[in-house]
Amino acid sequence: MNETGRPQDFPLSNPRADRVRDVAKLAGRPARLKRGQFLAEGPQAVGEALALHQKRIAAGEPGIVREVFASGACLDRHPELEKLAEGTNARLATDDVLAAMADTVNPQGIIAVCTFLDVSLEEVLDAAPKLIAVLCQVRDPGNAGTVLRAADAAGADAVVLTGSSVDIYNPKAVRSTAGSLFHLPIVLGADVAELVARCKERGIGVLAADGYGQLNLDRLQDENAARRLGASAAESAYALEKPTAWLFGNEAQGLSEDEIALADHRVAVPVYGEAESLNLGTAATVCLYASARSQQAP
Amino acid sequence: MNETGRPQDFPLSNPRADRVRDVAKLAGRPARLKRGQFLAEGPQAVGEALALHQKRIAAGEPGIVREVFASGACLDRHPELEKLAEGTNARLATDDVLAAMADTVNPQGIIAVCTFLDVSLEEVLDAAPKLIAVLCQVRDPGNAGTVLRAADAAGADAVVLTGSSVDIYNPKAVRSTAGSLFHLPIVLGADVAELVARCKERGIGVLAADGYGQLNLDRLQDENAARRLGASAAESAYALEKPTAWLFGNEAQGLSEDEIALADHRVAVPVYGEAESLNLGTAATVCLYASARSQQAP
Repeated sequence: MNETGRPQDFPLSNPRADRVRDVAKLAGRPARLKRGQFLAEGPQAVGEALALHQKRIAAGEPGIVREVFASGACLDRHPELEKLAEGTNARLATDDVLAAMADTVNPQGIIAVCTFLDVSLEEVLDAAPKLIAVLCQVRDPGNAGTVLRAADAAGADAVVLTGSSVDIYNPKAVRSTAGSLFHLPIVLGADVAELVARCKERGIGVLAADGYGQLNLDRLQDENAARRLGASAAESAYALEKPTAWLFGNEAQGLSEDEIALADHRVAVPVYGEAESLNLGTAATVCLYASARSQQAP
Repeated sequence: MNETGRPQDFPLSNPRADRVRDVAKLAGRPARLKRGQFLAEGPQAVGEALALHQKRIAAGEPGIVREVFASGACLDRHPELEKLAEGTNARLATDDVLAAMADTVNPQGIIAVCTFLDVSLEEVLDAAPKLIAVLCQVRDPGNAGTVLRAADAAGADAVVLTGSSVDIYNPKAVRSTAGSLFHLPIVLGADVAELVARCKERGIGVLAADGYGQLNLDRLQDENAARRLGASAAESAYALEKPTAWLFGNEAQGLSEDEIALADHRVAVPVYGEAESLNLGTAATVCLYASARSQQAP
């Protein structure tokens, strides 16, 4: 920051500059993998990235925001971002430069280059997680981001993506998380069989979300509520308050038979109408909230 | 159908023919409104459209499929569609023609021209509905379709869109419903105030889904479960098994204060993590399933 309170008043103005192109390349996977960096676009995502960055710096850990580029108009509309960007490598840029850097048609005036956030499975498991969402072969970036956002809302402790899933650092996936990517630990490139074995070692139950599952999620919730409220002494088929990893499958095919066979139970969200199924994001939300409700109940 | 079992073996092959252009125009709202017709694309949507068409014809009602265009390869993969299309105005078409007709890059070999399906609010209310999803100022076709699909899965009796909402006959909205558009009655162009007044006259409770709502949906479900299971004699703030219309708002702004004021209660899906909120599709799913669970409970 300089004395006017603005990151270097002289804005980047050449959309064809190498520096601008380097940022734009992060919309592609090869550049992301090579540099270990990805893009956050728009005030919400950049705000969450900066908040996490400052929290880490304050804790003596490495930050996660490498560069911020913003228009003056955006900083006028969002003065909180200017404050959050203090001490970071922030620059003003013209709308042309921001448009050239961004994956979106409308980058909303601010872009940050962030370093990869993913952690190891070991790190997640060592923190004694109660709720984990596992995405197996999920292909659509919007779906992956939606599930990550729902996992965050349900208070999940981590999201794990298998090696065959979409890249969560894809700009569309980052957008769909609505900032949740910066809220909870993510593990990438996991092997489902290994993950399940590690969960079981630590007493974490594994449920496969599967439209053809033999356990009905609503009945399971009723059984759990009855037991919790003392209205029934019967054990439910699965105690939802238990630490749980939910496996969610590919949007078109669901989980493979091999993946399902790894789980303790296959659980279906019941369909009361004529729909063939729910879509991935909505089904995952109902499952994660069922666990959260039981885990959070007094 | 001719004797070879194929709708007119000689396929439409000129992608620039007037007939082809007329179909393609239905991707735009003016042509849809003028003709009262819309497009269903792909085997799933066309299959559901044809199933509804045949059901209506069998009941002595007017059908809803005006024309079907399919490639021979698609009918080879989906012989059930050929059977469903019997008696309809079906034609073979080349891939070029189908691509020219379709809104999607990949129309999956089959397209149907359907007549508008929406019914009047009166017709819906006369059928004594137990669960209605109301979309207020929802702008994104994908979101509208996702909520409609979730409403179908939750066994809702109808979906109502206000006049300020996106056109549900938009091809992207139709796709997002995954066939559910053909499963339950829809009402278009509703006025929220009038709708709420009519619901209240008939004893249908009105809940506003609102992140800032004073009622917590999970607590409400627990209270209802406790009462249902005899673990508590206390009245819950709202009996979820009651016939209910849920109001869902715009994806960015939520419901307006005026809309919220019309409802009996404003209800929030609790956020247990750091996410600011759920997205519209996932929040609506959790709300509709909460009602469905209570309504379906023994």
